[in-house]
Amino acid sequence: MDGLFRSQNPAGLVPAAARALFRAGTRPGTTSGWCHGHVQANMLAVPRDLAFDALLFAWRNPRACPLIDVTDPGDPCPRTAAPHADLRTDLPAYVVYRDGEPVATLEDAVPAWREDMVGLLTGCSFTAEDALLAAGIPLRHLEQDRNVPMYVTNRRCAPTRRLSGPLVVSMRFVPRDLVGAAAEVTGALPLAHGGPVHAGDPAALGIADLDKPDFGDAVRPRDGDVPVFWACGVTLQAVIMSSRPEYAVTHAPGRMFITDLAS
Amino acid sequence: MDGLFRSQNPAGLVPAAARALFRAGTRPGTTSGWCHGHVQANMLAVPRDLAFDALLFAWRNPRACPLIDVTDPGDPCPRTAAPHADLRTDLPAYVVYRDGEPVATLEDAVPAWREDMVGLLTGCSFTAEDALLAAGIPLRHLEQDRNVPMYVTNRRCAPTRRLSGPLVVSMRFVPRDLVGAAAEVTGALPLAHGGPVHAGDPAALGIADLDKPDFGDAVRPRDGDVPVFWACGVTLQAVIMSSRPEYAVTHAPGRMFITDLAS
Repeated sequence: MDGLFRSQNPAGLVPAAARALFRAGTRPGTTSGWCHGHVQANMLAVPRDLAFDALLFAWRNPRACPLIDVTDPGDPCPRTAAPHADLRTDLPAYVVYRDGEPVATLEDAVPAWREDMVGLLTGCSFTAEDALLAAGIPLRHLEQDRNVPMYVTNRRCAPTRRLSGPLVVSMRFVPRDLVGAAAEVTGALPLAHGGPVHAGDPAALGIADLDKPDFGDAVRPRDGDVPVFWACGVTLQAVIMSSRPEYAVTHAPGRMFITDLAS
Repeated sequence: MDGLFRSQNPAGLVPAAARALFRAGTRPGTTSGWCHGHVQANMLAVPRDLAFDALLFAWRNPRACPLIDVTDPGDPCPRTAAPHADLRTDLPAYVVYRDGEPVATLEDAVPAWREDMVGLLTGCSFTAEDALLAAGIPLRHLEQDRNVPMYVTNRRCAPTRRLSGPLVVSMRFVPRDLVGAAAEVTGALPLAHGGPVHAGDPAALGIADLDKPDFGDAVRPRDGDVPVFWACGVTLQAVIMSSRPEYAVTHAPGRMFITDLAS
């Protein structure tokens, strides 16, 4: 990380400044906590031939993939969410998938951006976490300095012809008497996955062991905590791995696109 | 119209019965007033190659084109809106467009349905009219037995690479002291175009003469009436005519697809 980054508090940066840092080579391990008050987004880019399926998949699965912006083919600028940004350079890191396999991690996606690529931005729970904390709901993974744990469930997303796969959820332990408040706070944020899809027994989602998340880190509960599950933007990555389209580029996990939109 | 139709009140039919009548050859001039309490929809079908633009256009213009359902390529069944229906046969009439020109009106779209066609259903103001009447707001075009007047405006829709065009609005005269109520009632119906885009001087939308609508019929105001304008699903037809894609099929004006969804 360079001097400009060290000299500033990431939470207080405006999105354009954060994106300029990433573009210039600052590569934080996560954008969690950056640019407080602004919407962060998952990014999926696919060739135009797959873009109808990607857009339709997001539309059919708004809980997991709430659409924030969609670019025109070949245009790397998300003109609604951040009209001066470039999706090829303004995220800290990218993953390239071929036939559903992650084959490369890149810090600059210009070489990976085919001329007809369409970029989709979908909502991310980082936005909801700000609201949960503001409502006085503790977040155990932050207390324990872990990434939020994520699990592949036994629920199937509504498929399209070429994209299908399981719903992925994030889990946060919430004190029993705050579960209702957590549902209410997040239910008001449809662009950050909305309210929980489940609270309580993980087996109801086909999750065998909370200590073994499929993505992120295991987190310890405190006495009286209940596991609460939200649809997760990583669903799109699970769908790419499951459906094995010829080519796709995504953000690297935890390193999101920071939009200009107020959260 | 056949005996089954004449023997029944269209308002009281369930959607499946109405669709069966259309499929069997009953061809009413409008579906306005049919199947009370159910959502009616505009229909646009395009080859898969144009489907990304059509879906993206609707997503970018939710006021004019609120998405209700989208079919998979080649599948004529709108599985969310009416899981036992067939878009090729279950509307009273269709229009076929080639290079943006309406070239044929059909009563059966099976011959026009290319094997990769994607059907989009978008919200229609017939649903909102039920709610306006229920709220005690008079509808002059119904009092005068006219079609609602529609106007091409000077507002441009948010374009995609291959689809662009003007916003089309419908106009209803509303007594001045009921304009707020009309806005509130329709604002709660985002799948029926939501609240008005404008109330008052038509010149603000570039409309020169209310007596010369671009579609539908001129309607006379009563003393104290204000013209109120809502985004209109005919926008999609204006966009097809303006953008001139190679091929598209739509419902015939006023003869909508009646979904199973409760309004």
